[in-house]
Amino acid sequence: MILYTHGQHAQIGTFGSYLSSYTEILSRDYDRFLDCYKRLNTNPLGAGPVGGTSIAINRIRTTELLGFDSIHSNSIDATSSRDWAVEFAFNCAILMANMSRITADLLEWSAVEFGYVELADEYASSSSIMPQKKNPSTLELLRGKTSEAYSALIELLTMVKGVPSGYYQDLQQTKVTLWRTVDNTQACLYVMTGIMSTLKVKPDKMWKQVDGSFTSAVELAETLVMDAGLSFRESYKISAEIVNQVIKEGKTLKAITPIDVENVTQRLFNKRVIVTNSMIEEATDPKKSLLRRASLGCPNPDEIKKLHKENELKLKENKSILKNKKTAIDDALSSLHKLAKTYLD
Amino acid sequence: MILYTHGQHAQIGTFGSYLSSYTEILSRDYDRFLDCYKRLNTNPLGAGPVGGTSIAINRIRTTELLGFDSIHSNSIDATSSRDWAVEFAFNCAILMANMSRITADLLEWSAVEFGYVELADEYASSSSIMPQKKNPSTLELLRGKTSEAYSALIELLTMVKGVPSGYYQDLQQTKVTLWRTVDNTQACLYVMTGIMSTLKVKPDKMWKQVDGSFTSAVELAETLVMDAGLSFRESYKISAEIVNQVIKEGKTLKAITPIDVENVTQRLFNKRVIVTNSMIEEATDPKKSLLRRASLGCPNPDEIKKLHKENELKLKENKSILKNKKTAIDDALSSLHKLAKTYLD
Amino acid sequence: MILYTHGQHAQIGTFGSYLSSYTEILSRDYDRFLDCYKRLNTNPLGAGPVGGTSIAINRIRTTELLGFDSIHSNSIDATSSRDWAVEFAFNCAILMANMSRITADLLEWSAVEFGYVELADEYASSSSIMPQKKNPSTLELLRGKTSEAYSALIELLTMVKGVPSGYYQDLQQTKVTLWRTVDNTQACLYVMTGIMSTLKVKPDKMWKQVDGSFTSAVELAETLVMDAGLSFRESYKISAEIVNQVIKEGKTLKAITPIDVENVTQRLFNKRVIVTNSMIEEATDPKKSLLRRASLGCPNPDEIKKLHKENELKLKENKSILKNKKTAIDDALSSLHKLAKTYLD
Amino acid sequence: MILYTHGQHAQIGTFGSYLSSYTEILSRDYDRFLDCYKRLNTNPLGAGPVGGTSIAINRIRTTELLGFDSIHSNSIDATSSRDWAVEFAFNCAILMANMSRITADLLEWSAVEFGYVELADEYASSSSIMPQKKNPSTLELLRGKTSEAYSALIELLTMVKGVPSGYYQDLQQTKVTLWRTVDNTQACLYVMTGIMSTLKVKPDKMWKQVDGSFTSAVELAETLVMDAGLSFRESYKISAEIVNQVIKEGKTLKAITPIDVENVTQRLFNKRVIVTNSMIEEATDPKKSLLRRASLGCPNPDEIKKLHKENELKLKENKSILKNKKTAIDDALSSLHKLAKTYLD
Repeated sequence: MILYTHGQHAQIGTFGSYLSSYTEILSRDYDRFLDCYKRLNTNPLGAGPVGGTSIAINRIRTTELLGFDSIHSNSIDATSSRDWAVEFAFNCAILMANMSRITADLLEWSAVEFGYVELADEYASSSSIMPQKKNPSTLELLRGKTSEAYSALIELLTMVKGVPSGYYQDLQQTKVTLWRTVDNTQACLYVMTGIMSTLKVKPDKMWKQVDGSFTSAVELAETLVMDAGLSFRESYKISAEIVNQVIKEGKTLKAITPIDVENVTQRLFNKRVIVTNSMIEEATDPKKSLLRRASLGCPNPDEIKKLHKENELKLKENKSILKNKKTAIDDALSSLHKLAKTYLD
Repeated sequence: MILYTHGQHAQIGTFGSYLSSYTEILSRDYDRFLDCYKRLNTNPLGAGPVGGTSIAINRIRTTELLGFDSIHSNSIDATSSRDWAVEFAFNCAILMANMSRITADLLEWSAVEFGYVELADEYASSSSIMPQKKNPSTLELLRGKTSEAYSALIELLTMVKGVPSGYYQDLQQTKVTLWRTVDNTQACLYVMTGIMSTLKVKPDKMWKQVDGSFTSAVELAETLVMDAGLSFRESYKISAEIVNQVIKEGKTLKAITPIDVENVTQRLFNKRVIVTNSMIEEATDPKKSLLRRASLGCPNPDEIKKLHKENELKLKENKSILKNKKTAIDDALSSLHKLAKTYLD
Repeated sequence: MILYTHGQHAQIGTFGSYLSSYTEILSRDYDRFLDCYKRLNTNPLGAGPVGGTSIAINRIRTTELLGFDSIHSNSIDATSSRDWAVEFAFNCAILMANMSRITADLLEWSAVEFGYVELADEYASSSSIMPQKKNPSTLELLRGKTSEAYSALIELLTMVKGVPSGYYQDLQQTKVTLWRTVDNTQACLYVMTGIMSTLKVKPDKMWKQVDGSFTSAVELAETLVMDAGLSFRESYKISAEIVNQVIKEGKTLKAITPIDVENVTQRLFNKRVIVTNSMIEEATDPKKSLLRRASLGCPNPDEIKKLHKENELKLKENKSILKNKKTAIDDALSSLHKLAKTYLD
Repeated sequence: MILYTHGQHAQIGTFGSYLSSYTEILSRDYDRFLDCYKRLNTNPLGAGPVGGTSIAINRIRTTELLGFDSIHSNSIDATSSRDWAVEFAFNCAILMANMSRITADLLEWSAVEFGYVELADEYASSSSIMPQKKNPSTLELLRGKTSEAYSALIELLTMVKGVPSGYYQDLQQTKVTLWRTVDNTQACLYVMTGIMSTLKVKPDKMWKQVDGSFTSAVELAETLVMDAGLSFRESYKISAEIVNQVIKEGKTLKAITPIDVENVTQRLFNKRVIVTNSMIEEATDPKKSLLRRASLGCPNPDEIKKLHKENELKLKENKSILKNKKTAIDDALSSLHKLAKTYLD
């Protein structure tokens, strides 16, 4: 598959490396929620209307019984602060921004001009007027929903800025906005999971586009640096000159010969270099050039496999953390119910 | 000092409990930056234009030399993601929202109607037209600057949503926005530090306002629960009835007697309770009622002192974390410069 | 009533001049909706999916039948543009910002420290815990609702930026957002109308605050310019000096005598001026100083009455414009139904 | 050229109809600025600090001398309202949103997969690492700049919401934000003008894409309605069935014959219709089908020419309005300078 920068063909990549990038991105999104949880799962009960109470409430005991991790101590802070809510909404917003970027990619790649992917029928719709169309409606609606997440964040930021210290009823509405954006984000994650797990990926279309492209130009330049002893400044100009020649002749980079490269080098820099057939081939054959890619985290399938293993471990760990948090709350609530029952009996 | 809810007199508090609330709030702001740093101090070098490079770059070594904590692994992610920048801008925005709330409080409290605080002359300005005025200009400008922090966040959110995967030059402008909001936030913190450390606080004005208020009404109700065995539902109504009587007679709560309370209780609930002078006094004397306040984190000076000790420890720890992070970067850069010099010699 | 700038006492004003300012502000809000209507009430029918249709549709006739004022001509524009929706949402947002400013004023003025106004009981609520409180809940909720209007605007701006030319289903969600903000804004206008028409205004409290204030200082300075031939630079300093003296002595401006002013002038500028009792009185008596205020649109009741007459005329005109627009749509729909019936018969 | 909906091939259009759509869109943007000017070019001078002045200032005369169209009457409104500034910023924001949509279109169309347009060299840049690339940097930067316009709007909305009635120094910062967004928007319009006037448009690439597409399917369905007496419901299904057949056979719509259509109609609806060669040709030949397009404002070149004439008239009129407004201000300022000189002489 071709990777783009500036909307133009850049380098050869793989769909796996694309998916792997979102594993990392979504993992950061997850970490943000985890970080927020520390600030969010704190007990405000016992703060009174704003200045606490003279009734002897044991806040440590209520914290335990309600499954909170810690106490939201200062009574003014506990009643008037909603930064934790805004942070949660921000985490939803940036997660949805990432969802939006995935939908933009898939929308483009499902256009006739690319054809890299095809949405499953249950995630597409037909046109009421144009018989030939398959519309990726779920992707468009998902992209639209990102706006809702942004708007919820702005709504909360505007609310909290509007109130001085002390409880104000404006804050009551933070809940409505928070519920709306949580529902929205959850629904979008659910739909995205469905879209990705039913997506038809078309490697043949990806290869076809790579074949006719000039994305190997940078590999050619790098080869000349490593195997022919040129500086990148020189090899960049040589590679550019060759791309121009080949385009003029209506050919692709596969058509070039060692002699072509040697001649251009001679002409531009008055240098004699020896270029072999295998150097050309390693640089211009998409599969070989991918395997030559050496930097940690690059789309070379070996690198992606390594990343994938690390990410699987991290996922496992994250799932376990989540499970523990859920269990802690469930256990606390169950104790609470038992205790409450003793008062009723 | 009076604590407000709904813009109305609520309960008696202290300026110390107010300051303590912001110690906790700003501590969460600090934690958010610390959390963000994990996602931000990661090394993108070696990701190439988007798909890595076939040149053998040692990303572990460059990470070490540049003082990063870890590698931004996937090359597509490393070149196209800016969520860490948006998160940083959000942290500035919520911090500035908190600054804005402080300025709103101080603006109100420096008005003639309150007079709780007075800005030092160097943070105020005179009016060009009205001879009698001392304008809290720095507070107003600070509040205005919060808008800049919000706008920077929206600017970055809009930018990142606009680009599909792969590097796009839109992302170049994230830096300009980020620099702007960092400069802005730093300047505001600096000014706020100056304002707070030179602020004239006027306890006499605070006490005067407490004295004429009805903020002890809730304490009276709570006393009736604890010392006279009434339910809160009953004591609330009794206390409310007494407040109404006292207002009608143009007096304050200090004027009430045990008999008043006993009579109202008899009339409203047909119950005989015994109310003592000391019960009334403990409830309606501002200082005594503050000391009766018992819940963890309430404005009772003893509670605030406890919180203050915890917060001082946390501050010390945070300063040490920050120092270590700075040292790590300094050490790495110094090694880098030494290494670079060996190539030049 | 005292008018504030920088949160400090500035000049004497009247509640009438305050209300008059919002007549002007809300009139601009109204004009914005009227301007938007030109761009909004245009007929997109007949634009096909994006490129029109070969079926002979008479767009002039459908425009007439549907009660549109004009045709949204270009078929690509008609299907892909939503700027009119965003403009409408902006008009709601700025209207709500103005609502929010009114609520901030009323919230402050209903605090004990001011007591200028009192909400009718049906627009306030009692505290569940503090017997003495009357909470201006509707004001707080109204202020909170402004955030919704802002968020709807951002939601729509984000949506329209996200789609290239040509219809995309993201645009379908503009409707949901638009409906939400229209409902919200309408409800808030309805509640605000109720609040304002039942508001208890307390002129005695307003006068009491004026009496003890130094808001006449600027009038004193202006009097010295007009009646004693001093420059404003001089009279400003003299007035400031007198304010300081009076404050030191714990008095108000009413206590000063002509001799005081003459002495300060002599001391500061070595000038002899003649100051009369009536000059002092005209400057420091709140009512007299208000009537001396001469500039068009100032709080002098005569000026406000003039503005009020103009605004009443404008309101009448606006009501008539609105009625005509409603009638035009009703007439068109009624013709349409009649016509449709002829096909069914 | 192909028009898209849902990111998929929809109907045949022309580049002219695309440009015409933006003539209409930008004309609305212009109208919004014109509407705003009414609320913006009003004279606040003479409003004093907030409550006017007792000095006899002639506000009608200063309005005339300063080139304002009318007086910002109420002194409280004149000093504390900035809705006109926010409206101006909104007008910039929606204009920039439209700029952003144009850049998104051009970015896509300058990708290899489309090749409809090519940026002039002075508006593109080369890649520092990839020899084959021509990066449409100005488009990307323009798209990024839209975020600035959005952020300026939010900044102003947040500022005005934050202040109660009466002047507050927060409002001073509205100017900085306004200047920033005016400069930004002007620069972007300037660059966009350069991009569009030097853009290389490639009709051959547009035709090539039309030729292999199924965008005539809707025309075929419409032809069957008009010339063969079928309902749209029937013709839609017939057309869809034929598209599917043709795709299966790896052909385009040009390959179908009258018999094909007659057979499918017979099979699906058991109806006998007569289809002629010319019916097929008119529906499937891109040029002919464009000329058949009949609805007002559709991409039929005749319709676009009509729109163009109207838009040229409107442009001429707008230019003349703008010139008059400029002249009015210039004349006023020149009178003012002459008058000022008489005082100096």
